[in-house]
Amino acid sequence: MTWTLARRAERLNPSIIREILKVTERPGIVSLAGGLPAADSFPVEAMREASARVLAEAPREALQYAASEGFGPLREWVAAQLSAQGMKADADRVLITTGSQQGLDLVGKVLIDAGSRVAVESPTYLGALQAFAPYEPAFVAVECDDEGPVPAALGEARGARFLYMLPNFQNPSGRCVGAARRDALMGECVRLGLPVLEDNPYGDLWFDTPPARPLAAHAPDEVIYMGSFSKVLAPGLRLGYVVAPAPLFPKLLQAKQAADLHTPGFNQRVVYEVIKDGFLDRHVPTIRARYRLQRDAMRAALERHMPAGCRWQVPEGGMFFWVELPEGVDALALLPKAVEAGVAYVPGAAFYSAKPRLNTLRLSFVTVSPERIEQGIATLGRLFGAAAGSPA
Amino acid sequence: MTWTLARRAERLNPSIIREILKVTERPGIVSLAGGLPAADSFPVEAMREASARVLAEAPREALQYAASEGFGPLREWVAAQLSAQGMKADADRVLITTGSQQGLDLVGKVLIDAGSRVAVESPTYLGALQAFAPYEPAFVAVECDDEGPVPAALGEARGARFLYMLPNFQNPSGRCVGAARRDALMGECVRLGLPVLEDNPYGDLWFDTPPARPLAAHAPDEVIYMGSFSKVLAPGLRLGYVVAPAPLFPKLLQAKQAADLHTPGFNQRVVYEVIKDGFLDRHVPTIRARYRLQRDAMRAALERHMPAGCRWQVPEGGMFFWVELPEGVDALALLPKAVEAGVAYVPGAAFYSAKPRLNTLRLSFVTVSPERIEQGIATLGRLFGAAAGSPA
Repeated sequence: MTWTLARRAERLNPSIIREILKVTERPGIVSLAGGLPAADSFPVEAMREASARVLAEAPREALQYAASEGFGPLREWVAAQLSAQGMKADADRVLITTGSQQGLDLVGKVLIDAGSRVAVESPTYLGALQAFAPYEPAFVAVECDDEGPVPAALGEARGARFLYMLPNFQNPSGRCVGAARRDALMGECVRLGLPVLEDNPYGDLWFDTPPARPLAAHAPDEVIYMGSFSKVLAPGLRLGYVVAPAPLFPKLLQAKQAADLHTPGFNQRVVYEVIKDGFLDRHVPTIRARYRLQRDAMRAALERHMPAGCRWQVPEGGMFFWVELPEGVDALALLPKAVEAGVAYVPGAAFYSAKPRLNTLRLSFVTVSPERIEQGIATLGRLFGAAAGSPA
Repeated sequence: MTWTLARRAERLNPSIIREILKVTERPGIVSLAGGLPAADSFPVEAMREASARVLAEAPREALQYAASEGFGPLREWVAAQLSAQGMKADADRVLITTGSQQGLDLVGKVLIDAGSRVAVESPTYLGALQAFAPYEPAFVAVECDDEGPVPAALGEARGARFLYMLPNFQNPSGRCVGAARRDALMGECVRLGLPVLEDNPYGDLWFDTPPARPLAAHAPDEVIYMGSFSKVLAPGLRLGYVVAPAPLFPKLLQAKQAADLHTPGFNQRVVYEVIKDGFLDRHVPTIRARYRLQRDAMRAALERHMPAGCRWQVPEGGMFFWVELPEGVDALALLPKAVEAGVAYVPGAAFYSAKPRLNTLRLSFVTVSPERIEQGIATLGRLFGAAAGSPA
């Protein structure tokens, strides 16, 4: 063909897993594969009122080109929320993004050269690997245990452009890093001169107690913080934000301008209308209660049906269980069989920057009813039990 | 600081012109600088109805994560519209983007390596230079005359990754490339193996006759085509699209997914609701009529007030006049004086990939009333006349 692709285009590839999972949209499949929040938690009525109000009160402003930084009152709102959590977050360092996925892309664009080392948890969020990959980094997988990245293992990441972390109810592991581990990690990062990209889409979805304060509260100049409205309101609006240290902010802003000029002003104004008077303080607890019930259903089903030798942590928030099967049982290879039997999950292999652990999988508990969770996990238990050569 | 910037971040810089023009938001300034469509042309009532309908009929789908390709019916609509203009445009090669600015970013990401040659018109759209710059191309400025890029000059662009062109009412020059020049250009591009990125945000804004058929209709496999809803509906929704040759589509799609997962589904559905029954056939003529009146007002004012030795083409569509001042009159240097005198414009220097012609400027006629156009151009006439040493 006439076209010559950029070298980085080699790093853009269709996801085999995504292809397999396309069939999970088939009616009748119990999909535990989704990374989607529960659609019946979306505050449709509040959105309807807010849309009408924005189009009645400021239609031209909402529909015209707008500032690349984002809508002023929304930036102020984000700064105030984060300041209440102990972060030093001035509104003028808040950049509104087209979903937090765009935050990952912009950070990659501004900070990653071909060959730059970028440290990630192991496993880590697949979408971040996809966002960074076109900038051709060399990923460094930091050793993790049940409490998060191991501070003593950070030395291997020395010289990396940054450490990418989801401290709260991580996708995919569900793990929340405790206060003591945060202290130890940030102490070590500061000592090593290793800056941090803190991604927090799930932090508000805690079940019993809120997570410890953000990493950015420990060392505001060494941490870029990212948040999102996708999990507490609705992802279809594509609204996230980045809070950047002052010296980085102008470069991220220029990258934002080059990428899409600005995030839709209409969406920003509608969300601001919805949230400005404390709506989330009433709404988010309903999501928490609902997700907790479903988490409990999945925990009970896993205990009932998974074969011996499986291992999981019970997530204290967020959307996911991370299950380790007995060594030698390959969750990627078993996926087509599972789908045939009517259940879908995401094989854990997708979440590793290198050397995937094939005996792992991610299960979402938020979009499926307790009854179907029970049914789906029972099916998986039989399948994995048979593969492990032991009765379920 | 702890942070190390990527090399490409050097190519991200604040626009000096943007800084100067910030003052143009001051009330009382006659701003001919905007690249904004006229906000009172936005179909607010249609948007209000469509938003309400989407949130009543498909709220969960509109607010949930959605396909990276875009909303199916909107992709079908785009394909049908373009097919009617003689393009071979299958819906499965239409990618909905977050404004057409994102299309520029994605094409840059997939096609430009550091040092790749990228051919552009001279002058060209500033936002495209900004989108491509972080991918570190070497720009090749193709010689242009009043009819567009000069076919015989394309040889210099041989080996470039693509030629970026706005054939219809170009930003900034206002020029529309005629049918014969299109034939000659595409013949030469095919002969040279030089693919084309065709950007068409203004094509629907013709005043008397529609532009000749798209470049993509000449050689569908050699042209990426980009369009936008910003100028015919409203830019604050951030909705554009890319139609890519089949071999490129998957890479652009993966780049899109990495960049922001998908364009807001709510916005796509609202726009589809607005346009699906022929709304644009009734609405766009009202924009054309309005812009034509203002074009006429600016033409008359320029003829009345510009000093001898100035030169401009009368645009037959779009939003801009491009004015060449007498050699030696520096429009960039004169901008602060103009702003002080109450009028703003964009110095032409911003629109050159290299060797700017300092005696040029861009004037928008779409957001200012005929009376204020007259007033603003009279002021500029005096200023430029004095600078040229001749009475206005």
